[in-house]
Amino acid sequence: MEALEQKILTEGQVLPGNILKVGSFLNQQIDTPFTLELGKEIANRYKADGITKILTIESSGIALSFAAAVYLGVPVVFAKKSESANVSGRVLTAPIHSYTHGNDYTAVLPADYISSKDRVLLVDDFLATGEALCGLISMANAAGATIAGCAIAIEKGFQKGGDDLRAKGIRVDSLAIIESMGPDSLTFRR
Amino acid sequence: MEALEQKILTEGQVLPGNILKVGSFLNQQIDTPFTLELGKEIANRYKADGITKILTIESSGIALSFAAAVYLGVPVVFAKKSESANVSGRVLTAPIHSYTHGNDYTAVLPADYISSKDRVLLVDDFLATGEALCGLISMANAAGATIAGCAIAIEKGFQKGGDDLRAKGIRVDSLAIIESMGPDSLTFRR
Repeated sequence: MEALEQKILTEGQVLPGNILKVGSFLNQQIDTPFTLELGKEIANRYKADGITKILTIESSGIALSFAAAVYLGVPVVFAKKSESANVSGRVLTAPIHSYTHGNDYTAVLPADYISSKDRVLLVDDFLATGEALCGLISMANAAGATIAGCAIAIEKGFQKGGDDLRAKGIRVDSLAIIESMGPDSLTFRR
Repeated sequence: MEALEQKILTEGQVLPGNILKVGSFLNQQIDTPFTLELGKEIANRYKADGITKILTIESSGIALSFAAAVYLGVPVVFAKKSESANVSGRVLTAPIHSYTHGNDYTAVLPADYISSKDRVLLVDDFLATGEALCGLISMANAAGATIAGCAIAIEKGFQKGGDDLRAKGIRVDSLAIIESMGPDSLTFRR
């Protein structure tokens, strides 16, 4: 998506450790009209796929998921990264390693909000090693839901996550795929 | 807001420990059209107040904040509950005690995204003891921003947070205020 690539080139910063900082518009400060545009693009790509629910994980995927949900007219369900007092009843869980935070955690999804009747679209802001998405996929599978695909704002194509998922036959739509990046250069896969 | 009170009565569950579970529409599963309605109501109440930015804290306030931001046409900035590798540069912090999780944490807000030029609206899904809001207020004050007010979906009026803030002269708009609740009863302040 041209507008997203331009925004990354204009506002993104490459930090040590293969971190792309896009906090000015995507995941610390949220550029509201721009995020709506990203959501609209995701909705357009999946409008014929019978999506009943968007599934994401807290917290930086929530705004993009909500934006896509506005145009698809479906609810969003998000997995939490720790169990809290207001999650009751049966839960689905998945172990996830966070590349950004450098730790392991358990993702928790209340089982009440996803079922075998659902056809889910997984949404997240970033796809790098694919750990978070694989966790979401395993929880969706455990609930018996059908997975229509994964929609991502920015995929780091030089890490293996996206291509591994595609090799498994899972549809992955990334609005921008970074082929390589360094302190002074950034190229996209097209 | 009548529609929110009805939704709480229809779908809410009171759990032990004064926990109101509204995960079916507000903070685990997000009812997208309904959340847009809540956001529109917040935007209507603050449309003449010159808001430049909405400030919230991850993660259950993000969707409501984004919905209000759609109608106010402003960005959302959210504080994180732990420092992560993609937060760089100067940050603002505030110690917060979580009533829901029963622990203490440090909220972290990148200082790049809030300044003395901002007139901020604080948004969250719940207001109980007010710890999270007070943390956001102290970070907004530290950035030199003006605080227009706080917009909340559900305030637990029987806890002291909202009334304490009002007593300090801070504007608090809660779309529903629960006066009392128990396993079999729930009354609203009107």
